[in-house]
Amino acid sequence: MEHQALVTFQPDGKTVSVPIGTRLHEAASKAGIDLEFPCGGHGICGKCRVEIAGEVSPPSMEEEDLFTSEELANGLRLCCQVEILGPAKVRILQRTAPVEVILQEGKEPAYEIQSPVRAIDLILPPPSVTDQRGDEERLLEVLHAQGIHAKTLPGHLLRDLPRILRDSDWAVIAILFGEDWLALHSQGVMRGVYGVAVDLGTTTVVASLHDVKTGTEFAKHGMTNRQAVCGSDVISRLSYVRERKDGLETLHRLATETLNRLIEQLVADHGIRKEEIYAVSLAGNTIMQQLFLQMDPSPIASSPFVPVCHRPTVWKARELGVEIHPEGCICVAPVIAGYVGGDIVADILASPLYESSETVVMLDLGTNAEIVLANEHEMTACACAAGPAFEGGEISQGMRAMEGAIERVWIEKDQLCLAVIGDTEPAGICGSGLVDTLAVLLETGVVDRTGRLLPPTEYPGPDWLRIRESAEGTRFVLWENGKISISLTDKDIREIQLAKGAVKAGIKILCHELGITVEKIDRVLLAGAFGSHLCPESALKVGLIPPMDLEKVHFIGNTAWVGAKMMLLSESGMRRSRVISEKMRYIELSGRIDFQSEFGLSMGFDDSWEYFGAI
Amino acid sequence: MEHQALVTFQPDGKTVSVPIGTRLHEAASKAGIDLEFPCGGHGICGKCRVEIAGEVSPPSMEEEDLFTSEELANGLRLCCQVEILGPAKVRILQRTAPVEVILQEGKEPAYEIQSPVRAIDLILPPPSVTDQRGDEERLLEVLHAQGIHAKTLPGHLLRDLPRILRDSDWAVIAILFGEDWLALHSQGVMRGVYGVAVDLGTTTVVASLHDVKTGTEFAKHGMTNRQAVCGSDVISRLSYVRERKDGLETLHRLATETLNRLIEQLVADHGIRKEEIYAVSLAGNTIMQQLFLQMDPSPIASSPFVPVCHRPTVWKARELGVEIHPEGCICVAPVIAGYVGGDIVADILASPLYESSETVVMLDLGTNAEIVLANEHEMTACACAAGPAFEGGEISQGMRAMEGAIERVWIEKDQLCLAVIGDTEPAGICGSGLVDTLAVLLETGVVDRTGRLLPPTEYPGPDWLRIRESAEGTRFVLWENGKISISLTDKDIREIQLAKGAVKAGIKILCHELGITVEKIDRVLLAGAFGSHLCPESALKVGLIPPMDLEKVHFIGNTAWVGAKMMLLSESGMRRSRVISEKMRYIELSGRIDFQSEFGLSMGFDDSWEYFGAI
Repeated sequence: MEHQALVTFQPDGKTVSVPIGTRLHEAASKAGIDLEFPCGGHGICGKCRVEIAGEVSPPSMEEEDLFTSEELANGLRLCCQVEILGPAKVRILQRTAPVEVILQEGKEPAYEIQSPVRAIDLILPPPSVTDQRGDEERLLEVLHAQGIHAKTLPGHLLRDLPRILRDSDWAVIAILFGEDWLALHSQGVMRGVYGVAVDLGTTTVVASLHDVKTGTEFAKHGMTNRQAVCGSDVISRLSYVRERKDGLETLHRLATETLNRLIEQLVADHGIRKEEIYAVSLAGNTIMQQLFLQMDPSPIASSPFVPVCHRPTVWKARELGVEIHPEGCICVAPVIAGYVGGDIVADILASPLYESSETVVMLDLGTNAEIVLANEHEMTACACAAGPAFEGGEISQGMRAMEGAIERVWIEKDQLCLAVIGDTEPAGICGSGLVDTLAVLLETGVVDRTGRLLPPTEYPGPDWLRIRESAEGTRFVLWENGKISISLTDKDIREIQLAKGAVKAGIKILCHELGITVEKIDRVLLAGAFGSHLCPESALKVGLIPPMDLEKVHFIGNTAWVGAKMMLLSESGMRRSRVISEKMRYIELSGRIDFQSEFGLSMGFDDSWEYFGAI
Repeated sequence: MEHQALVTFQPDGKTVSVPIGTRLHEAASKAGIDLEFPCGGHGICGKCRVEIAGEVSPPSMEEEDLFTSEELANGLRLCCQVEILGPAKVRILQRTAPVEVILQEGKEPAYEIQSPVRAIDLILPPPSVTDQRGDEERLLEVLHAQGIHAKTLPGHLLRDLPRILRDSDWAVIAILFGEDWLALHSQGVMRGVYGVAVDLGTTTVVASLHDVKTGTEFAKHGMTNRQAVCGSDVISRLSYVRERKDGLETLHRLATETLNRLIEQLVADHGIRKEEIYAVSLAGNTIMQQLFLQMDPSPIASSPFVPVCHRPTVWKARELGVEIHPEGCICVAPVIAGYVGGDIVADILASPLYESSETVVMLDLGTNAEIVLANEHEMTACACAAGPAFEGGEISQGMRAMEGAIERVWIEKDQLCLAVIGDTEPAGICGSGLVDTLAVLLETGVVDRTGRLLPPTEYPGPDWLRIRESAEGTRFVLWENGKISISLTDKDIREIQLAKGAVKAGIKILCHELGITVEKIDRVLLAGAFGSHLCPESALKVGLIPPMDLEKVHFIGNTAWVGAKMMLLSESGMRRSRVISEKMRYIELSGRIDFQSEFGLSMGFDDSWEYFGAI
């Protein structure tokens, strides 16, 4: 034990004993503290700051770049860089994402509850000299008489069959998934049959517990995806897989651990056993799904971006290490493309877009923006790299939509007004706040049609629009308190322009592919976490969505989770998810000359949505 | 190490160290010495005799009953009863069964080599921006273009797929079992694709190694079923399962170990790796098959004798612990009934009985006698308990067909002639010798039509027919040398009468069910180990087979192994085996009143084969 050291974490107050030489992020993980490492632990982003007192490794080059010598002297360090050399006390400075934001309900379409998971009570006639059918034939024929054509039994059930039938005195409960066998119990033993619906987000994972027969929801929980320790977005997680020998295995394990922790909470809430859960339905983006399934997503990282398969896949819980009934099914949503995943299929399934007679566009905006355009005849989809701006990345004072983020900006009575998540002092600005700010700046003329932030010399506006000029360039101040301020730079505006230009170009190209003009779009659906924060009016003003009556713009909430639930609880949901992935026409934008030109044309802030094609 | 003791076994010359208190049979097993315990280790049969010098437990009650005090003083003991208390030297007295007898070839019908196991070379078009099919779709569609409609890939292959396709530069080999995936390899890596055909006998297991493409046999081996340590016949193994908590698991493990040892020999012979074997086809009686599959056979032990299922089953090698490619298939033959198993299905598949235009009866005689009667319209089968007489059991000086057994008895030039297996001094008499002897005794009139062995006072025959009378009754001496003699008693003849009566009654009832008289039978096929030793002329004389031209009686050899091979190497073999088990009409004799009366009528030695029905 002389080579172990005690590490205490504040504010959690947890202490763990780890071997000398352990990396601090591993010690935190051991203590059950989930931190986020947006840059994947490379010491670049500086988001995993901690305050340390104790015996640790000297600062790395990355830390020396990020911190002043005074900060280093005060014990400021990066959790991803530090190695434990002896006893240490650590204060975590990172704030975690407000999970409850994600838990908001999406609107649900009506659907019939008829889960593929079924529990069927059966009474078998006992064998006799005149009825020498084998145990399996006897069982299948009684099911058949009820109109259920189940498959033959898997090996593990064949082995248990003689005992179960005789111990139960020929009164059993068959648990089926479609035509496949999951389990067989004696009727004497009371058990429930539950299912779990999962939205496997890159940032947050949400899971709910249901009675598969009635659909009743008994519990719902969300938590940070434990993969966040390997990077905050899919790109950094792809790097993690490529750069480490056990990267894929680690990310698979972390996703499974996240799900297993949620399952623990769900079963504890409702007071059941894990083994009473027989199915998990799960939707996530293609890379999240492949990481969860331990299928290398590297081919999605570069052209031609191909996934392992598009179809829905069904796995045994034991194959994936998911802690439900070991023979239970894990159903993973079909995907449309490498960057239009099962979450979008679930969104469509749960949204008014599917089988609508209108022309509808659905936007799920983030680092990767997914766009679906459908009319009653056809569905098309594309994906474009919007960059991290919508999630607050690459913005000088950007941050994710969590406590302290300016999420809303507007003008009221000649005042610039701000709304901050958690009603605290602002710490930065998130995507929705950025779009709002840009709308305000366009409206007031502080930013011109080309996207240029006018310097104070050129903009003779009111005092409450604080434009500052310094050696670094022009910036627009949203908030200041003494020396601390939150402001937007010229470069920040360029980042949002890039994001918006990609989305606008994508919408125009889908319209072109469908043979319609943008004016024909009847309705806009905003999906995903960013969509639910976005102010539609601002989105219209900056040209992120086509000109449209505001009433025709809808937030559809966490439809990925709703879609996963529909796949769990309804056979038609399962079937439709497959139809969506098969019928969808995917338009690959990369390499299209017209996308390059439309992208360029869409960066400015004019009102034109005309498609020009390759110029 | 002070609680260990060294035990040396002769004539093998092997020494093992075991903990004090170990049972001797466990020590023998540890030394790799396979002994047989016909009574299942209960100390009853006395067949596991050993000579011991050293520190062991005192004689058990069973041993005191079996041995004289002089024998015990000389160190004679039963291997199943002794406990090791210190160093000991043990001489094994048991002779093992002559495996080569079983290895004789059966006649093979012609069949097309077209194994369900296939290796298919594939070249895939690499993905591009205009062809973004997923890896799995790409693979399946190339197979589809070759007319092969394979199923979707199992999880383990989906996981490996991105790597295999890219490492192989899109040139792969698909290994399929029918439409199911077993493996996928890069074309760059040379590998063979082999299969193993197994006859899983109660006594002996035979396995052969084949190229699945050409059918070529590369090696063949037989060895004693390691389950013999738990009893020599199915009945004692059923008891073993019922009496011990881990009985089923032990018997499953011993069967798997036997198979794995054979596989080791086969791959060593041909110089390949175990992982190059992708399929095992296996046939055995229903109880042997269920024990191998770890499916409790207890319900077969008592009325109504039902198996778990009748259909053929396919297992993954890893499910059963069989050491071939872990994803390889273990195909287990379908069965007809609890006592008419996969070995009989394989016999029929490989014999001239299947699809014959003649009326044919097939007999597989042993403790359990299986009888199949078929004409061009219909196939019927029954099983009857013939008792152990055919295998030398319950006969005062009976033994199995191994070295030292009198296997042939005839009269030549007024002399009683004997043939002994291994040309040694006789040690006992086996089933075929018993039938021969009975034929001689009936012909000479020493045994009358009712089965009574006439005492010397009633039989004034020649001197060379040695009939002796003593306090124990009348006996007929086959051989004597000083004080040692081999003879047959009145009671022994009764045992053979019981066996013969059951078989004759079975044949009569099948004829009755088929609506024919015994005279309509065109041909008799003798299957199994006993059948291949039997003298047809004697069998006719004692009334074990119906009156018939001797040319119409055929030995068909080890057809169970031939049938297993056909199932491995030919898709039509697989299909036909299923048809045989489904089309066969099984007649349950137990509880039939007509069987009781026909059984009684069939014990005598008259020539009548008329069916009387219930009297």
